Amino acid sequence: MTKKTFPLSHVYRLLEPGPVVLVTTSYKGKANVMTMSWHTMMEFEPPLVGCVISGRNYSFDALTATKECAINIPTANLAKQVVGIGNCSGNKVDKFRKFGLTLLPALQLAPPLIAECYANLECRVVDTRMVNKYNFFVLEVVKAWIDPSRKNPHTLHHQGKGVFMVAGRTIKLPSKMK
Amino acid sequence: MTKKTFPLSHVYRLLEPGPVVLVTTSYKGKANVMTMSWHTMMEFEPPLVGCVISGRNYSFDALTATKECAINIPTANLAKQVVGIGNCSGNKVDKFRKFGLTLLPALQLAPPLIAECYANLECRVVDTRMVNKYNFFVLEVVKAWIDPSRKNPHTLHHQGKGVFMVAGRTIKLPSKMK
Repeated sequence: MTKKTFPLSHVYRLLEPGPVVLVTTSYKGKANVMTMSWHTMMEFEPPLVGCVISGRNYSFDALTATKECAINIPTANLAKQVVGIGNCSGNKVDKFRKFGLTLLPALQLAPPLIAECYANLECRVVDTRMVNKYNFFVLEVVKAWIDPSRKNPHTLHHQGKGVFMVAGRTIKLPSKMK
Repeated sequence: MTKKTFPLSHVYRLLEPGPVVLVTTSYKGKANVMTMSWHTMMEFEPPLVGCVISGRNYSFDALTATKECAINIPTANLAKQVVGIGNCSGNKVDKFRKFGLTLLPALQLAPPLIAECYANLECRVVDTRMVNKYNFFVLEVVKAWIDPSRKNPHTLHHQGKGVFMVAGRTIKLPSKMK
């Protein structure tokens, strides 16, 4: 793996801008992946992430049963795969094979990491109180990886119906905020 | 107001890409505004939004007491105001005056809308179960406004410590997803 460890205290910098992500799970010996945009940071450290994973997704059962997933952050070169993954079910196809994605073992979890994604977050479910009503899971990021060669990753930001905003330039302003 | 009503069923298209937003509240006759990036869509319609508003924010008390706020979505031309608002407290200054923002009345709420923002969402708190543990509020968007002349708004996406990604180009791929 060419990726290096990314500090947990900085994970919010990856998810706060709202990129679409690929969530991997592993259940009964079978890995799966889904596309997700409904997530938010909830705490800096340990990093907590809240996310909605619908009961209509095949990944829902895996996440509920195993309490483990990985959040993989793709960039614009993977746009076709991101949409393709969102438009089929792991119940019917092996999405990793279908979309030519390379799997890497996680350090602390059974779900695989996606090599083509520039960052990977190993997560455990830590709160399921809001699952029944909202399909809302609280995850703790227990290990984070990043490709250090990707300085200004062109993440994808879904605007509905297959339209994505691609991350543009960055600006820096003096700020006391984290 | 030059803004027109925006369909509630499309609100997810505004928030799903993860823009930094300005949250307005009104409490004891005094309006206030804070900068927020920790939010996620939770349901399409009626649109539900989950967000973290820390107890350290002056707005926390207003939101808890009144159960009302507006989410105002700024664009890159407001970057200085967005950072400035995040770096001072409504406990000490009138941030609207300090940053030269124009207030418009909301239709269904006491909190004002910010005229300079390209979209405004009138929200009510509908679930506070996760407030004690995570400062996490579930909001329902009850009315939405948009400036129809702004076709490709350059929203701001916080990457930590005053660094913002500015929304770039958009791409469209064939998709069956909402």
